[in-house]
Amino acid sequence: MRISEVSRLSGVSVASIKYYVREGLLAAGTALGPTSSEYGEDHVKRLHLIRALIDIGGLSIATAKDVLGAVDSPDLSLAHVFERAQLAVSRTDVYSTEGSEESRARLDELVEEQGWHVGPGNPGRVAAGNILDAFDALGLSGLRSLLTPYAQAAVAIAEVDLRAVAAQPDIEAMTETVVAGTVLGDALLAALRRMAQEHMTSVLFPAPASPETPSASDDRSTP
Amino acid sequence: MRISEVSRLSGVSVASIKYYVREGLLAAGTALGPTSSEYGEDHVKRLHLIRALIDIGGLSIATAKDVLGAVDSPDLSLAHVFERAQLAVSRTDVYSTEGSEESRARLDELVEEQGWHVGPGNPGRVAAGNILDAFDALGLSGLRSLLTPYAQAAVAIAEVDLRAVAAQPDIEAMTETVVAGTVLGDALLAALRRMAQEHMTSVLFPAPASPETPSASDDRSTP
Repeated sequence: MRISEVSRLSGVSVASIKYYVREGLLAAGTALGPTSSEYGEDHVKRLHLIRALIDIGGLSIATAKDVLGAVDSPDLSLAHVFERAQLAVSRTDVYSTEGSEESRARLDELVEEQGWHVGPGNPGRVAAGNILDAFDALGLSGLRSLLTPYAQAAVAIAEVDLRAVAAQPDIEAMTETVVAGTVLGDALLAALRRMAQEHMTSVLFPAPASPETPSASDDRSTP
Repeated sequence: MRISEVSRLSGVSVASIKYYVREGLLAAGTALGPTSSEYGEDHVKRLHLIRALIDIGGLSIATAKDVLGAVDSPDLSLAHVFERAQLAVSRTDVYSTEGSEESRARLDELVEEQGWHVGPGNPGRVAAGNILDAFDALGLSGLRSLLTPYAQAAVAIAEVDLRAVAAQPDIEAMTETVVAGTVLGDALLAALRRMAQEHMTSVLFPAPASPETPSASDDRSTP
């Protein structure tokens, strides 16, 4: 198919498609002549993945390219694809330090207490150390108590994630699942947390009954 | 204290402090004369919150200002602070639609199945609809099966979140906990998910034993 058809099917403009090809995120089409190329279904599928990483995952072009590099390396083991996708997605560049000694010790404790097998270079570990420090800097050290219940929820989620990867028919689909699941999974979890917080707010902090003026939550429960 | 002292204690440059005052994120100091102002501990504390929202939460100046507006409205109920913080943080502006009819119906089902009290305008609901559509566009519709286990994890997390808010001594601390917990909590959860994924990878996909060349995971487990 022509580039205009790829654009129609993917919802990505022709200019953007050409840009992704130039930047190395998308393979060029097969040249049919000096001004036209033939594209296939794979191009449409790849464009959906690129847009998901950038629009929903919030990745930069450079980071998306790095993650897609993992998809394109069939020789990498799944563990390595996970590692590459995680590193790219985890924006560890925003953290200038590894976290304070105290926070790192708390995470060592957590790993021990949960019986986890997690190396010191795990990008999540660096991020978590910095977040614990941020709680302290805000005078909200009490939020460190979130760590254990969050970790218990995280391991249940990770098991579901890994089983979804294992259920894929081939290594290509597994790799795509790792990449999309890492990026979109964070977004889905954050989205469901917002929904669950609204629910738990109504359970734990019910709005006082006011028969005259219906409360905002009443309004919203009856669309 | 002088602005230079605020800068030293918060780690934020004098130029940035003045910028935040101009943009309305931080209250101005009390004028002592034409060129100097007196600042207090509250300014330092607020600067930590601003930096956490921007650096760790990834919020823009405009979005951070909107979230801080919720902190500064003591007349708002906790449910409304949650709603404001959630809306600001959820970047719903990246979603041009509410999600397909099919995805919205699936979320209605989820809410029903979980017995949740969640209004149709919840920002997480809009985000989740778009993410389900992204799974479909990527040919990974099987990932829709993540929805129920993720929701079960999310409600456990939300309960911990709300109890952490309730444990705060006053409404100001509660509001700060909502804001910091919403933004930093997403980041902490994503970080712990990365750690748990590394652990579950070693459990579900153990690396083949190779006595000659120690595996990467062996290297990492012995710092």
